[in-house]
Amino acid sequence: MVTDKFSALFYARSVALVGASNDRRKWGFVTLKHLVDGGFAGRIYPVNPSEDEILGLKVYKNIGDLPETPDMAVIVVPPPTVPDVIKQCVDKGIKAGIIITAGFAELGSEGARMQWQITDTARAGGMVFVGPNCNGVMSPWNKQYVQFPSFFVPPGPIAVVAQSGNVMDSLARQVMMYGQGCSVCIASGNEASLHIEDYLEYLADDPHTRVILSYIEGFKNGDRFIKVAREVSKKKPIIMVKAGRTQAGAAAAASHTASIAGSDVIFDAVCKQTGIIRAASLDELVNIGLGLLRQPLPKGRGLGIVTAGGGWGVLAADACAALGFNVVKLPEATIKELDKLLPAWWNRGNPVDLVAGVAGDNIFKAIELVMQVPWVDSMMFLSIMPALKVRGFDAPQQPEAREKWDKEITAAVIEAFERLNAIADKYQKPLVVASEHMWSTAVEQAEIGYELGKNNAVCYHMPHEAAAVLDAMAKYSGYLRGKAL
Amino acid sequence: MVTDKFSALFYARSVALVGASNDRRKWGFVTLKHLVDGGFAGRIYPVNPSEDEILGLKVYKNIGDLPETPDMAVIVVPPPTVPDVIKQCVDKGIKAGIIITAGFAELGSEGARMQWQITDTARAGGMVFVGPNCNGVMSPWNKQYVQFPSFFVPPGPIAVVAQSGNVMDSLARQVMMYGQGCSVCIASGNEASLHIEDYLEYLADDPHTRVILSYIEGFKNGDRFIKVAREVSKKKPIIMVKAGRTQAGAAAAASHTASIAGSDVIFDAVCKQTGIIRAASLDELVNIGLGLLRQPLPKGRGLGIVTAGGGWGVLAADACAALGFNVVKLPEATIKELDKLLPAWWNRGNPVDLVAGVAGDNIFKAIELVMQVPWVDSMMFLSIMPALKVRGFDAPQQPEAREKWDKEITAAVIEAFERLNAIADKYQKPLVVASEHMWSTAVEQAEIGYELGKNNAVCYHMPHEAAAVLDAMAKYSGYLRGKAL
Repeated sequence: MVTDKFSALFYARSVALVGASNDRRKWGFVTLKHLVDGGFAGRIYPVNPSEDEILGLKVYKNIGDLPETPDMAVIVVPPPTVPDVIKQCVDKGIKAGIIITAGFAELGSEGARMQWQITDTARAGGMVFVGPNCNGVMSPWNKQYVQFPSFFVPPGPIAVVAQSGNVMDSLARQVMMYGQGCSVCIASGNEASLHIEDYLEYLADDPHTRVILSYIEGFKNGDRFIKVAREVSKKKPIIMVKAGRTQAGAAAAASHTASIAGSDVIFDAVCKQTGIIRAASLDELVNIGLGLLRQPLPKGRGLGIVTAGGGWGVLAADACAALGFNVVKLPEATIKELDKLLPAWWNRGNPVDLVAGVAGDNIFKAIELVMQVPWVDSMMFLSIMPALKVRGFDAPQQPEAREKWDKEITAAVIEAFERLNAIADKYQKPLVVASEHMWSTAVEQAEIGYELGKNNAVCYHMPHEAAAVLDAMAKYSGYLRGKAL
Repeated sequence: MVTDKFSALFYARSVALVGASNDRRKWGFVTLKHLVDGGFAGRIYPVNPSEDEILGLKVYKNIGDLPETPDMAVIVVPPPTVPDVIKQCVDKGIKAGIIITAGFAELGSEGARMQWQITDTARAGGMVFVGPNCNGVMSPWNKQYVQFPSFFVPPGPIAVVAQSGNVMDSLARQVMMYGQGCSVCIASGNEASLHIEDYLEYLADDPHTRVILSYIEGFKNGDRFIKVAREVSKKKPIIMVKAGRTQAGAAAAASHTASIAGSDVIFDAVCKQTGIIRAASLDELVNIGLGLLRQPLPKGRGLGIVTAGGGWGVLAADACAALGFNVVKLPEATIKELDKLLPAWWNRGNPVDLVAGVAGDNIFKAIELVMQVPWVDSMMFLSIMPALKVRGFDAPQQPEAREKWDKEITAAVIEAFERLNAIADKYQKPLVVASEHMWSTAVEQAEIGYELGKNNAVCYHMPHEAAAVLDAMAKYSGYLRGKAL
């Protein structure tokens, strides 16, 4: 038996699933099936007084009958029976649980009363739990998928903590679609026992976790949250979407997870104090997390842009300037060096518009020249096609030739990103990329995004997305340096 | 020979390509190859004094030698030779052209002088042209792909006009990735001869075009633009991204297409006056266009949200309220009817949180109940999975079974969208959907988005994206009704 409570939750070697069911429509079936399908290597004990066997597993009538004290209990019984189940868990000596069942504080005073009751019982018995009103915990490094959806996010460096199971699923899945993986994903639900601060404290020292993505509707204890977040941010970036910023959203949050959303202006101030990076949406949250995994942090707001598309360059300059970046003037010496690489009619400005016809090595050289400018702190590169060894506008039309060519150009994309990442490392300045893969179908583009992630690279879809990532990097860098950038 | 100039441009039956080349790295090769590969059914005349044959086509030494007066000339010769080529075109009686060549007003006074010269020569000879400094025109209904990228957007109802070839390519490709098609895509470049207003006037009466997507860096003639846009908007929605809103962006625009960006505040006022829907980014531009293709327009700002995910419901309420929607209180009678469909612990509010366990017909019934509320003007539905006939969390793990199942669930998604669209039609209120396809990989998700488009439906990725689309619909509806919504 695992003794530490968080290890019991995330690295259990034995799990009781209380409320397991043979009815495929019920969570008690789906959750058990996914725990099995995900390849959990420990012992699983389904508990249900009226079943004998589910998915080939022996079912126990009640918790008291279990042949050992499991590390953790997953609870999916109807709300009125949860208090008794918690009492049984405590009596058995179980130290950690996940209460999936909904119908507590989010429904009003009667539910709140029941929530207090189970929390008191657990606390008195030395038990902690996730939830209630959550949809599980994914712990990929332990192949422990206590979850609703049927996909299995692979192990990786990104932690997810969300006060919404649906958002946890969203985030885990987006991470997976970008070829990355998760350290642990927690749907924290109503946070009756374990709170967001507890998870953040745990993740700060979790060796698998390198960035923390979080979705929050409200706080139980603002002071402790600020104290904890401030310390955790010094070790790892916390990126957060805070919902309930309008009256309509706050009302929805209250009925969803019984959260008091609080003032949005105050939360902005909290972010500044604690180093939390606030994201505007779930996709931006993931974008920023992926960027922080790989890129060095900038030391200022000076920005260089190199673009293979004129319009995208204008859009990028707009997006970055609006976020407070200084699209800097390039030194005359740099312009002269660039003159040697680019056609006579290049624009001699920043963004550096590569103009059609420039290709291959000269593009990487141009990027390096801009990187070398002392007042360039970070860079954006737009439209990767001309930098590839395989020419994107040479796509064969014949299906078999096309399939072979697709593999070649995907490999060329990965190679180009390796070169770009090496430039970022060499100069210790971030270099983010936004590009469509102009030759590809929607399906091929998704495939390329996935393969890039496998190779620890990320390509943003649009210039404004890349700009938001650079802005997050500058803010976080400022927090770590103790001065706003 | 086609006599009308726009027909000559977009529905040519014969095209001269001046500057055609056998050098695969040159635009003169790429453009010709794509015109051929795209399946152009008319006559193609490559022109180049030093080539005999390109891609199996006979090459003419100069324009004078052509066996007929072609409807249109595509010009890809170096900048200093463009004036002479235009003169030859005029002498031959050619009435329309596309000047791809760059190196004119965007480079300064010398280029501007040359641009005036070719414009004067063309005007005097009764010739109009697209560009210079553009990368082509796609006219899918005529299989006339004068373009740089190697994809071929299918014919459809969406027109693209962009003062950037790179952005034209982006937009056409995004439309294609959503399973939709284009009526015509124009990279307008420096707009020396034909201006944005000319294209808008043409598109207003083009029977193939139902919505107009546009990217603009600046205007030559603001007064005419306002006059034209105001009238065109009454017939078809114009959705526009205006770049150059910051100083850095405006400087980039000047060196890109010699555009004077003008004040961003003024452009906002122009949009209000003219009914132009302003989008914040290229992806939002496409999202709005796709929404306007299919959905009825709202009559007010009252909004109903039905969600299968609690967190997404909160995010949607936030996004919509921030844009001025009223997330309305549902009448007691509606709550009572919903009570019959939903579990006892549903939230009895708006957003209607479907809670786990609700599935199938009851979801459509719940949506209809909200649609019937008189003060609900539009609706958003989030997370489609539980509404499907095939259960999304039942994905088989075995590859062959999975492949079969994927087809079934994709068909189920399409069927669900047909039912949703039918509800929108029945109540004549827009019903937009944001959903992940929680069971799918990145590749499968891209495939579903494509198949949905083929069936005239669109599924947005995120709640805030769907909110922006509803906002655009409300603004456009307000313009048509003569009062701000």
